[in-house]
Amino acid sequence: MTIAANNPHLKSWVDVPAGSDFPIQNLPFGIFKTPQLKERVGTRIGNHVLDLKTLFVLGYLENLPFELSDFDAVSLNPIMKKGKKGTRDLRNRISKLLDANQEDLQKNEHHVQQVLIPVEQTEMCMPVQIGDYTDFYSSREHATNVGTMFRDPNNALLPNWLWIPVGYHGRASSVIISGENIHRPKGQIKPNPEEPPVYEACRRLDFELETAFITYDGKALGDSISTDEAEDYIFGMCLFNDWSARDIQTWEYVPLGPFLAKNFASSISPWIVTLDALQPYQCEGPEQDPKVLSYLEYKGQKSYDINLQVLIQPNNGEENLVCRSNFKYMYWNMAQQLAHHTVNGCNVRAGDLMGSGTISGPTPDSYGSMLELAWKGTKPIQLSDGSERKFLEDHDTVIIRGYAEKEGVRVGFGEVSTKILPAK
Amino acid sequence: MTIAANNPHLKSWVDVPAGSDFPIQNLPFGIFKTPQLKERVGTRIGNHVLDLKTLFVLGYLENLPFELSDFDAVSLNPIMKKGKKGTRDLRNRISKLLDANQEDLQKNEHHVQQVLIPVEQTEMCMPVQIGDYTDFYSSREHATNVGTMFRDPNNALLPNWLWIPVGYHGRASSVIISGENIHRPKGQIKPNPEEPPVYEACRRLDFELETAFITYDGKALGDSISTDEAEDYIFGMCLFNDWSARDIQTWEYVPLGPFLAKNFASSISPWIVTLDALQPYQCEGPEQDPKVLSYLEYKGQKSYDINLQVLIQPNNGEENLVCRSNFKYMYWNMAQQLAHHTVNGCNVRAGDLMGSGTISGPTPDSYGSMLELAWKGTKPIQLSDGSERKFLEDHDTVIIRGYAEKEGVRVGFGEVSTKILPAK
Repeated sequence: MTIAANNPHLKSWVDVPAGSDFPIQNLPFGIFKTPQLKERVGTRIGNHVLDLKTLFVLGYLENLPFELSDFDAVSLNPIMKKGKKGTRDLRNRISKLLDANQEDLQKNEHHVQQVLIPVEQTEMCMPVQIGDYTDFYSSREHATNVGTMFRDPNNALLPNWLWIPVGYHGRASSVIISGENIHRPKGQIKPNPEEPPVYEACRRLDFELETAFITYDGKALGDSISTDEAEDYIFGMCLFNDWSARDIQTWEYVPLGPFLAKNFASSISPWIVTLDALQPYQCEGPEQDPKVLSYLEYKGQKSYDINLQVLIQPNNGEENLVCRSNFKYMYWNMAQQLAHHTVNGCNVRAGDLMGSGTISGPTPDSYGSMLELAWKGTKPIQLSDGSERKFLEDHDTVIIRGYAEKEGVRVGFGEVSTKILPAK
Repeated sequence: MTIAANNPHLKSWVDVPAGSDFPIQNLPFGIFKTPQLKERVGTRIGNHVLDLKTLFVLGYLENLPFELSDFDAVSLNPIMKKGKKGTRDLRNRISKLLDANQEDLQKNEHHVQQVLIPVEQTEMCMPVQIGDYTDFYSSREHATNVGTMFRDPNNALLPNWLWIPVGYHGRASSVIISGENIHRPKGQIKPNPEEPPVYEACRRLDFELETAFITYDGKALGDSISTDEAEDYIFGMCLFNDWSARDIQTWEYVPLGPFLAKNFASSISPWIVTLDALQPYQCEGPEQDPKVLSYLEYKGQKSYDINLQVLIQPNNGEENLVCRSNFKYMYWNMAQQLAHHTVNGCNVRAGDLMGSGTISGPTPDSYGSMLELAWKGTKPIQLSDGSERKFLEDHDTVIIRGYAEKEGVRVGFGEVSTKILPAK
């Protein structure tokens, strides 16, 4: 289907610098505040935030299924509650208001001054009140790398991996927004296999390059969402850094999976880019062999061509690009993930967050974690300041950026950036 | 410390039948409604529900840190937000109002008629808006049984088990209340090890006898809760049936743990019995050898003597008692579980639910799951109607009951009862 706001020929009357992640074709949703304004829903255009609450108050969002409280909100959950049609109509309306050919808002200088806020005057807040957070493990290259390092290079993938979009439940309470610092976690590690475990700060702190998608309300408990239906239940995507304490993980994860190795923090980017805005970047996914079970079959293009980068910035140092990957490498697509998640009748709710799993590509410079990039510490990464990294150090900042680009239109996510402070 | 409401000599002017789970020494909290009254906070005394919203409106809850909206609520989260002192003072006040020696409420017949509702006129609702649900794996007998069946009887416990209160994250969205039916889940199973997996209804559906505790707001992300502090962050407990699809679990759970095998449903009992009310039933826990790491050391009695029963009721049949266990068998206590959960800085919030893990005792009739009771299908259980069970059948109802009893005072949980409907 054609989505009006995706028209690549649209130009906005709001200035959008070259290379911006936020042209009129994007229009992501987020929660922002300013010293004067409390939390509310906004969208981003170029280097400005558009205040949707004020836009609503001024009457520009009439005849849409929204009320003031939907925009005068501390999370996007109220607008997500309106479902795909509601948020699509909203984005199309905003697109019209920002279109250079439309004068309604453009020519009302008094209104423009009220609704358009320079981004440097705003502070972004957690966009979503997350109900449940699920993390998948859907990059074949990542699973193969981990299996090669820790198990058997000749049988790197576990027997279920090509059949199941493997996933597990994570911690919603510790999902934080870009810009918040984290502390190096403490816990049980077992540095010497012959000795008992010790209670210490993690020594092998890692990032995981991921994206995440956010759901609308799904079906009732007991009902499943098919791959055909799945994208109608996905609101949008963000960048996601699923912090991992590798040494805690190694000791704790058998048999019930990662727990304290992951749940100390996961960082998300503040703007939720709608799945609608990403539609032009759909592409073929990897061939799936063996043939998947019936409930995982899908039609059409369900992968997305999204460039991803990871940068490490040492304390007061410069950014070092350490990984270039792409979301299209994912073996299992989001429609399959959601169909699998609900095949047993598990219910999803507006605001659930589903992480992709670490997105590694086919080449060593596309691996999405320090574990893989430095190959379990055997191939340290050189940084521009002369230091090297096997894992992350205190005061390192990890930045993930991502964008899709085609025919001169770039739809981006901005970034998720998090600094590591020493253990408490 | 002495909690006034726990005085074993207290009698209520409200009739409490012999053997009731709900004497004046209990006073659990729950959410109820009636055909006339919408959801609100209540407590239970004998066979009556005490309407706390109306009690507040009538002025009986003055000089406590609560407002009308805390009781006029669809979950207990608002009262839990007030923390241990607030809810303790509230329970003590209710105890006073129901004390046979106190006339304030007792003698006001008009008020009594408004606030005291026969239990058969009420319907219980989900008591808690659960933020995150964590499940532990803290019964040594259960872990040993599972390890014996699936791995090596001589090395049944995994190396980390005696060091770590092993836990993992579960699904909050699919936690349901006693009385709601579930459907047998579908998913991937692999009945024949030589053949590919198939997409079918689960054949090995199981219950897990558990309890769960509900937390108050904890500390900020990055801070830990010590074992000394832990019980100040626990509001109360309920019975918990953590449904498990054993065949789905076997195929999916390596390496990231159970997912679809568990997240189709977990059932809780409607009344949250406060940790205060359970204080008289504290007891010694099992000896822990090897000595635990420093952050898991604890002082005093942190285990609780709570009798637990599981009953299976075939369609239109009678109840069959299949398991008698006790919460005191747990190797890791709740204080250790919470200290472990937060040792890495993971934050907990009011309304988080933490399951004990299956509570198996030392004898075969105290095993807390069908998997163990029928020993992987090799020792079917005989029911009174002549049928036998290796796992659960469609139309079976599983009921868990539990109570603590000492010096003639019984503090009970009521029950959690759930019927299994066929796969959709």
